[in-house]
Amino acid sequence: MVIRLFWIFVQKRKFETIHYMMYQSEISLPAFPRGFHLITNIIEKHLPALPQCGMLHLFLKHTSAGLTLNENADPTVRYDLESIMNRIVPEKQQYEHDDEGSDDMPAHAKSTLAGASLLIPVSSGKLNMGTWQGIYLCEFRNRGGSRKLVMTVWSA
Amino acid sequence: MVIRLFWIFVQKRKFETIHYMMYQSEISLPAFPRGFHLITNIIEKHLPALPQCGMLHLFLKHTSAGLTLNENADPTVRYDLESIMNRIVPEKQQYEHDDEGSDDMPAHAKSTLAGASLLIPVSSGKLNMGTWQGIYLCEFRNRGGSRKLVMTVWSA
Amino acid sequence: MVIRLFWIFVQKRKFETIHYMMYQSEISLPAFPRGFHLITNIIEKHLPALPQCGMLHLFLKHTSAGLTLNENADPTVRYDLESIMNRIVPEKQQYEHDDEGSDDMPAHAKSTLAGASLLIPVSSGKLNMGTWQGIYLCEFRNRGGSRKLVMTVWSA
Repeated sequence: MVIRLFWIFVQKRKFETIHYMMYQSEISLPAFPRGFHLITNIIEKHLPALPQCGMLHLFLKHTSAGLTLNENADPTVRYDLESIMNRIVPEKQQYEHDDEGSDDMPAHAKSTLAGASLLIPVSSGKLNMGTWQGIYLCEFRNRGGSRKLVMTVWSA
Repeated sequence: MVIRLFWIFVQKRKFETIHYMMYQSEISLPAFPRGFHLITNIIEKHLPALPQCGMLHLFLKHTSAGLTLNENADPTVRYDLESIMNRIVPEKQQYEHDDEGSDDMPAHAKSTLAGASLLIPVSSGKLNMGTWQGIYLCEFRNRGGSRKLVMTVWSA
Repeated sequence: MVIRLFWIFVQKRKFETIHYMMYQSEISLPAFPRGFHLITNIIEKHLPALPQCGMLHLFLKHTSAGLTLNENADPTVRYDLESIMNRIVPEKQQYEHDDEGSDDMPAHAKSTLAGASLLIPVSSGKLNMGTWQGIYLCEFRNRGGSRKLVMTVWSA
């Protein structure tokens, strides 16, 4: 489900036809199992027509998941990333915040390590990422459920 | 103390009343003890009237502290985060950069791990964060003192 | 080599002389050895004239390197950061993704931990960083080669 929050779009002086705009919408990602997941396609499906020169911001409204950019080809990268993050923030440790299970507090810490938002340049109407870069959802909970994400596109 | 650096605000074609603006100010946070601290209220107190659709950027001008988003309700999350970060970058280790004490080099590393800036969407005149998200100052030094922060708000 | 992608620059109502603009270019960084490197000077050399109030975004188009802000004076900070990151994501570990050598998968993980982009406020025509902040390229591969970076500057 997509809620279009705002669409500000102004056409300026006819002889120049330069557009300023900011577009914002909120989407719900499908529930993913714990792990790292390539979501570039899902994001692109929800994007508006992109400007010739602008920025895309993705913002996850959660504290036990993250967004990151990483390798978009070999699935073993996602597998190894899950193992590495589990080694950096192990579950078999005493935490004060443990009411929701042993995966909860590590998920909060991993969210701070990976970050919950991404800012990507837009050029010639496309996301200007490297050949091997893909957008990852980092699902750090065993059952995180659907995750909400705010996307903002602007040009100047 | 707040230094208002700039306030660019332009009203365009009367019949549309669309505003473009960028607002920037520098604030000083009070000195916090080492640890993770919820500062959403402090940030909101210094914000200008927010646009219907825009972005807020927070930028810490320091290399031994950080900014992150995490759980805004249970204080034990902040307590556990401090323990987790100390385990990831322990002080009882030999560092070349140690003139300012054993907490100094780990603080630099933690700052790179957590990051020193945040970009948050603004929607309907409010910060569009998730229900459980709060803005944290990560104070990685034992005596970090007051920290300077640049906030920038823009709409298009 | 610099490819100027776009230059949108509009002078508005003469009596106010306010400029809205977004500038975007792609640069290639020289090849650096594995480690943390201060690149503030290289970045500044490629910047256009900066606005009175705006933002600079730096975006690395790679998944085995990173960008971060850290201490710009003492080179031992960069040395210690390399050791710390190697301890957090050790190479002597079994990884599924290992076709390109033992430094490859750790490099991907470190890229997610450090992040691949930076957003820095621009004030009074300069980067508004702290006295001790510098821009680092984090080269996580043994032979990463030249790295591509998209820089975007905007004001509103």
